[in-house]
Amino acid sequence: MTHRLQTPASARRAPLLDDSVRVVDGAVLILDRRVFPRSVEWVAAVDAEEVAAAIAGMVTQSSGPLYAAYAAMELTALQVADLDLDAAGRRMRRAAEVVATARPTNGHPREAVEHVLAAIDEAASTPQLVEAAVEAARDGSDLYRRRSRLLGDATVALLDDGARILTHCWMDTYLVETVRAAEAVGKSFEWVATETRPYLQGARLTSHTLAEMGQPVTLITDGMGAAAMAPGSGLGPIDALVTAADRVSLDGSVVNKVGTLGLAVAASAFGVPFYALVQAPDAGAPTADDIVVEERDGDEVLAVGGVRTASDLVTRGWYPAFDVTPARFVTRIVTDRGAFPADRVADYHRKQQA
Amino acid sequence: MTHRLQTPASARRAPLLDDSVRVVDGAVLILDRRVFPRSVEWVAAVDAEEVAAAIAGMVTQSSGPLYAAYAAMELTALQVADLDLDAAGRRMRRAAEVVATARPTNGHPREAVEHVLAAIDEAASTPQLVEAAVEAARDGSDLYRRRSRLLGDATVALLDDGARILTHCWMDTYLVETVRAAEAVGKSFEWVATETRPYLQGARLTSHTLAEMGQPVTLITDGMGAAAMAPGSGLGPIDALVTAADRVSLDGSVVNKVGTLGLAVAASAFGVPFYALVQAPDAGAPTADDIVVEERDGDEVLAVGGVRTASDLVTRGWYPAFDVTPARFVTRIVTDRGAFPADRVADYHRKQQA
Repeated sequence: MTHRLQTPASARRAPLLDDSVRVVDGAVLILDRRVFPRSVEWVAAVDAEEVAAAIAGMVTQSSGPLYAAYAAMELTALQVADLDLDAAGRRMRRAAEVVATARPTNGHPREAVEHVLAAIDEAASTPQLVEAAVEAARDGSDLYRRRSRLLGDATVALLDDGARILTHCWMDTYLVETVRAAEAVGKSFEWVATETRPYLQGARLTSHTLAEMGQPVTLITDGMGAAAMAPGSGLGPIDALVTAADRVSLDGSVVNKVGTLGLAVAASAFGVPFYALVQAPDAGAPTADDIVVEERDGDEVLAVGGVRTASDLVTRGWYPAFDVTPARFVTRIVTDRGAFPADRVADYHRKQQA
Repeated sequence: MTHRLQTPASARRAPLLDDSVRVVDGAVLILDRRVFPRSVEWVAAVDAEEVAAAIAGMVTQSSGPLYAAYAAMELTALQVADLDLDAAGRRMRRAAEVVATARPTNGHPREAVEHVLAAIDEAASTPQLVEAAVEAARDGSDLYRRRSRLLGDATVALLDDGARILTHCWMDTYLVETVRAAEAVGKSFEWVATETRPYLQGARLTSHTLAEMGQPVTLITDGMGAAAMAPGSGLGPIDALVTAADRVSLDGSVVNKVGTLGLAVAASAFGVPFYALVQAPDAGAPTADDIVVEERDGDEVLAVGGVRTASDLVTRGWYPAFDVTPARFVTRIVTDRGAFPADRVADYHRKQQA
């Protein structure tokens, strides 16, 4: 089970969602994104199993499970310091297994634990194992952030100072690093965020984080994106549609939060460039058909925040978690190795990191 | 002021929204669509001024203000029976003025009261005035329904038996008459309805009414329309996008609830026909530039049903009530005189009614 804490005083620095997984004495603290920012609560997981349960329970999503997986491995390493090497190694591998399988369709936790397991492979003593694991966990998190910053730099290079950007759902670390990259080169942006039903990530997470970072942000409903991008919009011109991508296949198809496709098609129709951000395309997915697109419980559509909004006579909702945007509607796929035309994103794997 | 009543027993026949304005002894009863179907409440307006206040207060929208305006004129006529002819006429004109100006951008109430005023112009006595006004009010409502049915017949002719239809917002009488027209010719449809934020007309009104009429309906969020229409959608193919149009200009631009544009662009991209329903295009509007597109209070986007959903840090929402879909994204405009290619809808006014 997990334990709920109030926000530690140290958490009160902006943006909170950028520092939402922490290893403290004897526990991993994970900010509960299901209720943030209406309520700022931290789930305290005292071992890897509890971290896995928090991931499975959707306490954190997007980049969150990656940070949580690294934190679980760091916590476990600190907890095996008194064991002999064999027992410590077994405990690390068991933690890795439970964390990696917490949410089958998110590849981040598996990558994270494999990175840590590789680092302890040669350890000749428990102290060596602990040191190597802690270092690998922290380095893995840092690497993810550095790659996000490279991606942010490449995104900012595509945007003029003063650009008005439409975004959808929640780009997490990519969003934070893009804002920081813009500040570093003296560019200012305005943001328009969709609310992103049914979970309202745009209304709750994106717009909150942008506001924390001092960015001007306007919220719209998910149906208003085309009206915002159409010529003569009352909001003023939108200069770019910018979203994260959960996955990108080698043919340049973008798998992202449902709603991305409709925005991309409208952007294409009205001459607005669409930049989709991902650290790297998926080398194992030649086309979008090689990526499983998850469907979630349709009942989520019938309610907002657990309160029924649909007529009681309605019994059926449909909730595809993601949609697939074909490459022809994508202007650039922006990675940590720069921006690629969507139909040439496979070149990523032939290019060295900058 | 208005008075709240429980649903009269006679109201319990389906679909309730098809009979949501009633003249009873001494009052007009108007179903409160702001809270329906979570709560079934009727606003009782005891004179034309109270009907106007209910229209201005958004108790009813879409076709509702038309029915309410006719009901206000009927109620007023019954209330002037004891006055001399001059006084009765003055009272009728005063009622007409207050009802016509209740909501400046909705043309229906003005058309309704002018229809009734024209009918009493030649009245030689108060009893003649009363009879003519009541007859004109009832005939006006009936005419609106008959024209909606002709439009429904023309829509059904475009759709195959078994068609899966995506719809947006709330088509009101057009929806009800389209379902009845399909039943009359033995066609069955499946419906997919967007929830239509911020007021949730799709989740509350459309899906409820379709369910009352025994139609299979699936609810989606406003961002899912493109995913539903894309090839290989998990929902199965969508055969047509069908929406009402608040106004249609003579160049075939469709002004309708915000969100229509994005759906129309996606439909066009994926080869799904888009049929926009309106009794008649607006003879006074050569292009969409001649139609004022209302913006409403952006704070509506920050909440659902009055409960804040956005982060408290967000201060700005944008709520264009309507968007404009250019003719190139519209397959047919369906009227009471049949279906027209969008760019030839001006021919409507050169064609006799069937």
